[in-house]
Amino acid sequence: MLNTPYLLFLGDAADPLSAKVAQGIKDWRPDFSVGQLRLPDCKADLGLPDLSIDEAVAAGAKTLVVGVANRGGFISEVWIKTFEEALAAGMDIASGLHNLLRDQPSLVAMAEKHGRQLIDVRVPTVEYPIATGVKRTGKRCLAVGTDCSVGKMYTALAMEKAMHAKGMKASFRATGQTGILITGGGVPLDAVIADFMAGSVEYLTPPNDDDHWDLIEGQGSLYHASYSGVTLALIHGGAPDALVLCHEPTREHMRGLPDYQQPSLQDLRDTALTMARIVNPAAQVIGISINTAALNDADANTLLQSTEQEMGLPTVDPFRQGADRLADALAAM
Amino acid sequence: MLNTPYLLFLGDAADPLSAKVAQGIKDWRPDFSVGQLRLPDCKADLGLPDLSIDEAVAAGAKTLVVGVANRGGFISEVWIKTFEEALAAGMDIASGLHNLLRDQPSLVAMAEKHGRQLIDVRVPTVEYPIATGVKRTGKRCLAVGTDCSVGKMYTALAMEKAMHAKGMKASFRATGQTGILITGGGVPLDAVIADFMAGSVEYLTPPNDDDHWDLIEGQGSLYHASYSGVTLALIHGGAPDALVLCHEPTREHMRGLPDYQQPSLQDLRDTALTMARIVNPAAQVIGISINTAALNDADANTLLQSTEQEMGLPTVDPFRQGADRLADALAAM
Repeated sequence: MLNTPYLLFLGDAADPLSAKVAQGIKDWRPDFSVGQLRLPDCKADLGLPDLSIDEAVAAGAKTLVVGVANRGGFISEVWIKTFEEALAAGMDIASGLHNLLRDQPSLVAMAEKHGRQLIDVRVPTVEYPIATGVKRTGKRCLAVGTDCSVGKMYTALAMEKAMHAKGMKASFRATGQTGILITGGGVPLDAVIADFMAGSVEYLTPPNDDDHWDLIEGQGSLYHASYSGVTLALIHGGAPDALVLCHEPTREHMRGLPDYQQPSLQDLRDTALTMARIVNPAAQVIGISINTAALNDADANTLLQSTEQEMGLPTVDPFRQGADRLADALAAM
Repeated sequence: MLNTPYLLFLGDAADPLSAKVAQGIKDWRPDFSVGQLRLPDCKADLGLPDLSIDEAVAAGAKTLVVGVANRGGFISEVWIKTFEEALAAGMDIASGLHNLLRDQPSLVAMAEKHGRQLIDVRVPTVEYPIATGVKRTGKRCLAVGTDCSVGKMYTALAMEKAMHAKGMKASFRATGQTGILITGGGVPLDAVIADFMAGSVEYLTPPNDDDHWDLIEGQGSLYHASYSGVTLALIHGGAPDALVLCHEPTREHMRGLPDYQQPSLQDLRDTALTMARIVNPAAQVIGISINTAALNDADANTLLQSTEQEMGLPTVDPFRQGADRLADALAAM
């Protein structure tokens, strides 16, 4: 778990989109951040107070979170001086970038000198167990997608928010770098050794109160040739009671796979249920989440309504409408 | 790839079963071994010439293969002196044990001194790519099981042997430690990082002649909660044209999972085909392999015949009958 609150490092972000990790933290964990730190030429702005390292420490910041990604996911040389200052001032540093903090000798030396941590959330630090398949108390919901990057994380976070607003017990469980940085903990599933994938998800979603819901962040897709094994490990390790189908309606082919088309929502429903019921015979699909960002209001509404009729399930765009109806569907189970 | 031929090290094997890796090499690659090396109290005997290290080197041995496993998969202290002698005499050492050769300082020093390799086949040494899902030339067959350890490796090796006898082009492709030691190369799939599983299988089964068959060693089961993700990565990375269903008929529950029962062969067929056709729409189930070791001749024959009738597919026990009929089914495709 990361120490909170954070100082969100936006660096020299080339545009707002490159600061999407920081934006996610601000959106979903507004209490986690005391401010932002921007270098000259930063093209992103979260609207948080601009703080120096010393001001951030004075405001209580415990961890500088690298909330920006440049092309290639590298740690830029122009960031290093700020990182060294943060360590010297008593903050940890957390990053989900491809290049690791721990591979930067000057940061390692500075962290050792000041007794601080360098946290590369992309790298597992736990020796996860082999999955046991034993039924656990508490309820679990998993978002599964027709493809990668269709809004599974967003859907689970929006459901958590809606459930908390209704007074329900719910915990978003992160399985990817961005989710881990947003919520402060989780399992970087795509970096786990094959034999321990499902076990890491069991570890992430332990026994809980009977009326508590884990909202497990989905990864990949059962229909994505590159990552389907990760998805199935999530389904069998998570043993979900409820599945939400996630879809992006304007994609011309599967992400990164020009020869592959997305499955229909019907096919995804049937396949995901077949696989989920191997470990949880009571598993149900409770709703559909469609990312309509590429559509105008009228087209989005038409699509949501027609999908709802065809599939007979609550169908929402959680960005446009919130996830209340999905939360209600869980409450009704 | 391991350098052949081998000296098979049986050590102080507690019984013949603990030397099953060595037995597998002798059975499936009889030309690979110049002899066996047994320590005092060895209870296994492959019927190969007993050779000292010097005699093995004189006979051409290039690699000492650790063909024995003690309880826990450790490297025993009583083996080390022999391993040091082998390195000094110019042999590599290969092992699939849980404890690694590379973690034994005296072996590392001796290997460096003599310019030899310590090969822990349990640990990937290749940086595998992300799977592309691009269709490859050549044909592929994958064994999928109702459970773990139901005879998938044996089936694929028996099919390779039968196909070679018929003059067909066929290559067994190992995905586990034992298979890698038997054939001298492969991918230790259960130790690959999640994101690269399917890519490692594409790497293992590259484009080939149109009439060449890769016989891919199966792992786990789509129905095994602990390892199903590994199995699905094999299906999507292997993109098999043909599937063989493997089954052990006397098991009381899924291996290691007391709360789970094996699926029916019908369910396995339908689920495996659904998943395989995502990447290879022409995929077919071409036969069934049943491990009848726990049955007498009459019961085995009755079961094989009734299964063949029920499923409408060639059904064999490759240990009792060979895999000729499965090879014929591939030839007919």
